[in-house]
Amino acid sequence: MKPHILSFESFDDWDSVALNELFTVHQFPASGEVADLPDEVKEKIRAFAFKGHSRLDADIMDAFPNLELVANYGVGYDTIDVAHASSRSIKVTNTPDVLTNDVADLAVGMLLSLNRGISGASDWVTSGQWASAGAYPLQRTLSGASVGIAGLGRIGRAIGNRLAAFETDIHYYARSKKDTPDWTFHDNLISLAQQSDILIVAVSGGPDTQKIISSGVIAALGSDGLLINIARGSTMDEDALINALQTRQIRGAALDVFNNEPDIDSRFMQLDNVLLQPHHSSGTIETRKRMGALQRQNLIALFNNTPLVTPVN
Amino acid sequence: MKPHILSFESFDDWDSVALNELFTVHQFPASGEVADLPDEVKEKIRAFAFKGHSRLDADIMDAFPNLELVANYGVGYDTIDVAHASSRSIKVTNTPDVLTNDVADLAVGMLLSLNRGISGASDWVTSGQWASAGAYPLQRTLSGASVGIAGLGRIGRAIGNRLAAFETDIHYYARSKKDTPDWTFHDNLISLAQQSDILIVAVSGGPDTQKIISSGVIAALGSDGLLINIARGSTMDEDALINALQTRQIRGAALDVFNNEPDIDSRFMQLDNVLLQPHHSSGTIETRKRMGALQRQNLIALFNNTPLVTPVN
Repeated sequence: MKPHILSFESFDDWDSVALNELFTVHQFPASGEVADLPDEVKEKIRAFAFKGHSRLDADIMDAFPNLELVANYGVGYDTIDVAHASSRSIKVTNTPDVLTNDVADLAVGMLLSLNRGISGASDWVTSGQWASAGAYPLQRTLSGASVGIAGLGRIGRAIGNRLAAFETDIHYYARSKKDTPDWTFHDNLISLAQQSDILIVAVSGGPDTQKIISSGVIAALGSDGLLINIARGSTMDEDALINALQTRQIRGAALDVFNNEPDIDSRFMQLDNVLLQPHHSSGTIETRKRMGALQRQNLIALFNNTPLVTPVN
Repeated sequence: MKPHILSFESFDDWDSVALNELFTVHQFPASGEVADLPDEVKEKIRAFAFKGHSRLDADIMDAFPNLELVANYGVGYDTIDVAHASSRSIKVTNTPDVLTNDVADLAVGMLLSLNRGISGASDWVTSGQWASAGAYPLQRTLSGASVGIAGLGRIGRAIGNRLAAFETDIHYYARSKKDTPDWTFHDNLISLAQQSDILIVAVSGGPDTQKIISSGVIAALGSDGLLINIARGSTMDEDALINALQTRQIRGAALDVFNNEPDIDSRFMQLDNVLLQPHHSSGTIETRKRMGALQRQNLIALFNNTPLVTPVN
């Protein structure tokens, strides 16, 4: 008898096959209504294979009387009501570490692409403007710049390690000073933004970081500043950001995350000083396979009564 | 009396102003014919402020009986007949070091952009496909990859220093083994390409490196391989490269340099597995100002009878 689990959103084939080999997999109703699942199925479910960025609230968890684990696919679990899970002794796991390098790589790739105008330069060649109009407009150098990293967890640190090799000056904001190379600690975001030519958001999502990239932080970054966000759209005051980009209060932004993905604010599409990415910072074949494997290891650990590999609560 | 110099191609305003303050500047004829310059001007010219990628051959130099210096704007001087200059005791200078970081930054930016599909991902968002069609196709991870660098001069080394921070395994080809971190030396390009997931061309241009990226090297890179060129188009067998890209013999290429710039082979425009850039690896305001200043320092040194700052011959 394979244990029963509930699967949210669609997994890649390699994950679906593996989940179905290990478990009896039920799908969250396409209607989005948990009530559409029969009660006898709900009673059998002992774990969720969770994926995606929709909200996983108390009312969904409470529809499953025998739920023991929410195994999240991804490192961020800001959409999961962990406090409620804990109150019911439901464990939550995530998939840290395996995606750190990919997220940091994309952050740096977005930064370089924005700062050196790589997308515009590509259009310059393919449209024939190089041949007809001459040299591409000059961009700005990176070396010697001050880079501010908001949030120095695993991903923020990996970004810092990469950018230090570009001969930049690393500043960071965190709740407390960390053990780092010669990076400069800031205890508030305004100070960080003032000292930064480029500000990279790498904090966790959730209520503590809601709109921490405020109009004040954006103003402190200044008219030469670039903003990079690979964290969560919720960290950003998007109205303030869009206004700052429209009025050239900052030089540009490269964004992998947004509020209301994938139906993002259409004003972003009208801007010529942004690089927009479809939340794919962990989107490589190798990393997604590792994320799926780690999620399953947590599920297997639950059913084998061995310690969870990457517990959150 | 200000010394007379000959200026090739158009300089940025900040350079033109500075050159005109220091020297009596004559312009190379727009016709492209040195014969269109009056003899009395040719006799006055003691130095060239050279720029661009057209050929500077013996016949041009020999039209100037009192030429003492060709001050090149740029690090590569493959289009200048240095051997002939030396035979006439004409000195040649270039602008090394000041552009190294920018070139290495663009190389890494092009690599990340190609490997993570950043341009395609941007189109995915702005075209509305993210909202209508779902997640962007998965790409490939960089960390753990083997990166081969062909040519370990200043720029190749700066690229290696950056990519080592991305947890890649660095291999290089050079004429002789160099003092490096734990990077692996290869004494030939086939061996380098075989060991590389990503091959970056960073050799100097000129006869010694003509088409060294041959069909054999490209085949050795293999169907998962990426090729990055920030060196010179002349290093590449472009027919072989285009064929390899058309037939998916390699996964993709990111190219900042081409034969016959800016009128590049139109077949490049038809490919969906390339990132094309308009030879702008040193194209930042900061670096271009430093390049112009260094070029002028060499000109000033000549006329002051002090040692040239960055002599080539």
